[in-house]
Amino acid sequence: MGPLRITGARITPVAFRDPPLLNTVGVHQPYALRAIIQLDTDAGLVGLGETYADTRHLARLRAAADAITGLDVFALNMIRAAIADTLRGDTAAVGTAGMITSASAVDQVLSPFEVACLDVQGRALGRPVSDLLGGAVRDAVPFSAYLFYKWAAHPGAEPDAFGAALDPDGIVAQARRIVDEYGFTAVKLKGGVFAPEEEMAAIEALAAAFPGMPLRLDPNAAWTPQTSVKVASGLAGILEYLEDPTPGLDGMAEVAAQAPMPLATNMCVVAFDELAPAVAKSSVRVVLSDHHYWGGLQRSRLLAGICETFGLGLSMHSNSHLGISLAAMVHLAAATPNLTYACDTHWPWKSEDVVAPGVLSFVDGSVPVPTTPGLGVDIDDDALAALHEQYLRCGIRDRDDTGYMRSIDPSFQTASPRW
Amino acid sequence: MGPLRITGARITPVAFRDPPLLNTVGVHQPYALRAIIQLDTDAGLVGLGETYADTRHLARLRAAADAITGLDVFALNMIRAAIADTLRGDTAAVGTAGMITSASAVDQVLSPFEVACLDVQGRALGRPVSDLLGGAVRDAVPFSAYLFYKWAAHPGAEPDAFGAALDPDGIVAQARRIVDEYGFTAVKLKGGVFAPEEEMAAIEALAAAFPGMPLRLDPNAAWTPQTSVKVASGLAGILEYLEDPTPGLDGMAEVAAQAPMPLATNMCVVAFDELAPAVAKSSVRVVLSDHHYWGGLQRSRLLAGICETFGLGLSMHSNSHLGISLAAMVHLAAATPNLTYACDTHWPWKSEDVVAPGVLSFVDGSVPVPTTPGLGVDIDDDALAALHEQYLRCGIRDRDDTGYMRSIDPSFQTASPRW
Ligand SMILES: [Mg+2]
Ligand SMILES: [Mg+2]
Repeated sequence: MGPLRITGARITPVAFRDPPLLNTVGVHQPYALRAIIQLDTDAGLVGLGETYADTRHLARLRAAADAITGLDVFALNMIRAAIADTLRGDTAAVGTAGMITSASAVDQVLSPFEVACLDVQGRALGRPVSDLLGGAVRDAVPFSAYLFYKWAAHPGAEPDAFGAALDPDGIVAQARRIVDEYGFTAVKLKGGVFAPEEEMAAIEALAAAFPGMPLRLDPNAAWTPQTSVKVASGLAGILEYLEDPTPGLDGMAEVAAQAPMPLATNMCVVAFDELAPAVAKSSVRVVLSDHHYWGGLQRSRLLAGICETFGLGLSMHSNSHLGISLAAMVHLAAATPNLTYACDTHWPWKSEDVVAPGVLSFVDGSVPVPTTPGLGVDIDDDALAALHEQYLRCGIRDRDDTGYMRSIDPSFQTASPRW
Repeated sequence: MGPLRITGARITPVAFRDPPLLNTVGVHQPYALRAIIQLDTDAGLVGLGETYADTRHLARLRAAADAITGLDVFALNMIRAAIADTLRGDTAAVGTAGMITSASAVDQVLSPFEVACLDVQGRALGRPVSDLLGGAVRDAVPFSAYLFYKWAAHPGAEPDAFGAALDPDGIVAQARRIVDEYGFTAVKLKGGVFAPEEEMAAIEALAAAFPGMPLRLDPNAAWTPQTSVKVASGLAGILEYLEDPTPGLDGMAEVAAQAPMPLATNMCVVAFDELAPAVAKSSVRVVLSDHHYWGGLQRSRLLAGICETFGLGLSMHSNSHLGISLAAMVHLAAATPNLTYACDTHWPWKSEDVVAPGVLSFVDGSVPVPTTPGLGVDIDDDALAALHEQYLRCGIRDRDDTGYMRSIDPSFQTASPRW
């Protein structure tokens, strides 16, 4: 194989319909945004990547694409250095409604290009991306059902297929529907929306409805340490882990010392420079990885190795995403022996995609790992064009759950902790 | 590319002449042992690896070769798992004269097979191994001159080309010769042989003879913490780092808190399970990696990432080795951005090899990174056969610096610390 030089990247922002999913900072807007990367090489092979599409991120992606043009797809160290050079001084994280604030901008921007480079490598080699990560250790990757409190519809729109879920009965009904359809063997509830007692009641209702099912609750740091300890004690023996009950490494450490179950995070440890203090403070026992802000698949493997080395468990975080991201998540998880928790995914909440159907599917709650070259997914050009048109039309340019909520309820205020 | 399945491994123990290099546990035997791995695949491609050849290790290598036969060369996760299964319960480290005792047997056995798998991958792809590690960030890898106290000859043999070095003048003369020939830009002295004041005098003589040259001293844990602190204070401003002055994580931490220069180690942190306690105790500021016991090149990259994440410096350790190991070290170091210290190598001390000459050379103290497929080195069949014959003839079956020293000086005793 000769050089496989990057000749440029086509970066296409897309928007796909998203239900009114509630969280502690507001509610999902009617459309979720993603940027689709098509990385072109002089060999004619095209690699795919997917990431956030906020305005600032798009500008960074375009600058990064210019900076890495001419480099070889195997030169990942130099690609990261070129991107770091380009971003120097521009470091704020993007794309997560203000819930993941300390991620590395370099690693966020690197991620879709790194995935695309691995996709090209795999296509050139005739090997799945999992083979470039040490090889799959499982044929299928288990995911968890990701439950949300939600309204029946966005204001002014028809009710969506899921309907409202605003109390324990609604959450159990939602879980029943999603578990029946996908076969998930673990369940996570996004909390931080209602008072802690109501969310505890929802978890208890889930435990009663799904005996033995591993359950997780994630209020996105909506609680004080005191409230967190009370909830943790009340849900002893019921929760597999409690995710980000309270803000910050010190608050988490205070809760961790008293909680009967492991604490997990995708808020207080989201970058490599947060690992040493988190280990020193014993703030968490499980880290949720996410290749979109940990710098791609190879650096997510590094995170996995660090977790194994320092005795931390490993799970996987999700934002609203499309099929390129799911494929990347599946290859990574398949090749990560110590990723022993079912991964998060927003997959059931979306009804549109940019990838040609047929490759990614759920069987008994797991996604079989693609074995075709690269990521194993291909762009549906018409679908990509349609979702780009939708992006242009919808008017949303940055994720803003809080602003959208305030447009509906002007009295809405964020607070962390809220209770 | 279709399957690249391992069909077996040819494991050939070899012996090469080694000068009487002194250390705190004794003296190098007249021959150093290595095992050469030729990993065969169903595609006809052969991958190379090099490791220790102690009796126990050879038996483990043979069992491992059987265990991984049938696996694909990209299935590195499964290859490690198969080797771990094979070795279960058999965990003592080998091959380093008792100076590296807590290394992982699994990672020691995995290492040459992992390197050989990457060699096959690179040959199949037409890419250098550095490309499989994220790509070279430097065209050449700097090494340090590795000085030893030594006798003029093994007992009963003719003096070797280097002659004796038993005092500061001898060490300076040795340094002059090696630096002149190879162009090294850093110098390390193996200590622990004479009283600390004599070795301090040797370092001071080197500093005077080579102004501005980075210097290192490694007594292999021959000193008490008190002695270590005294030496460290005496060599303030002269040593780049002080390597393993005293045994154990606690002793090293005690010295580290008082030493003016960084402490480095390849004795108290030689396995992944020693990293968390070393970080917690602040025992060292530099880790010397060595792919031969850290589980190969990919796991050495993990070590590098851990060092970067936890604020530790990274250098590279060496035992007596041949060209396959040097090639692997060079690819790894070239693709490791945070490996900022010149690497150790015993290269100048050997006069025989199993690889065909012409690929590996020193230019201004650095080895240019091979750019041909795989490791870039090939076996010289005649040389391999000759060094295997030498192995059969020489009678040495395990590295034993102490036993050999006692055969010469029956009063010799090991002690750590000795001073
Ligand atoms: Mg979360
Ligand atoms: Mg050493």
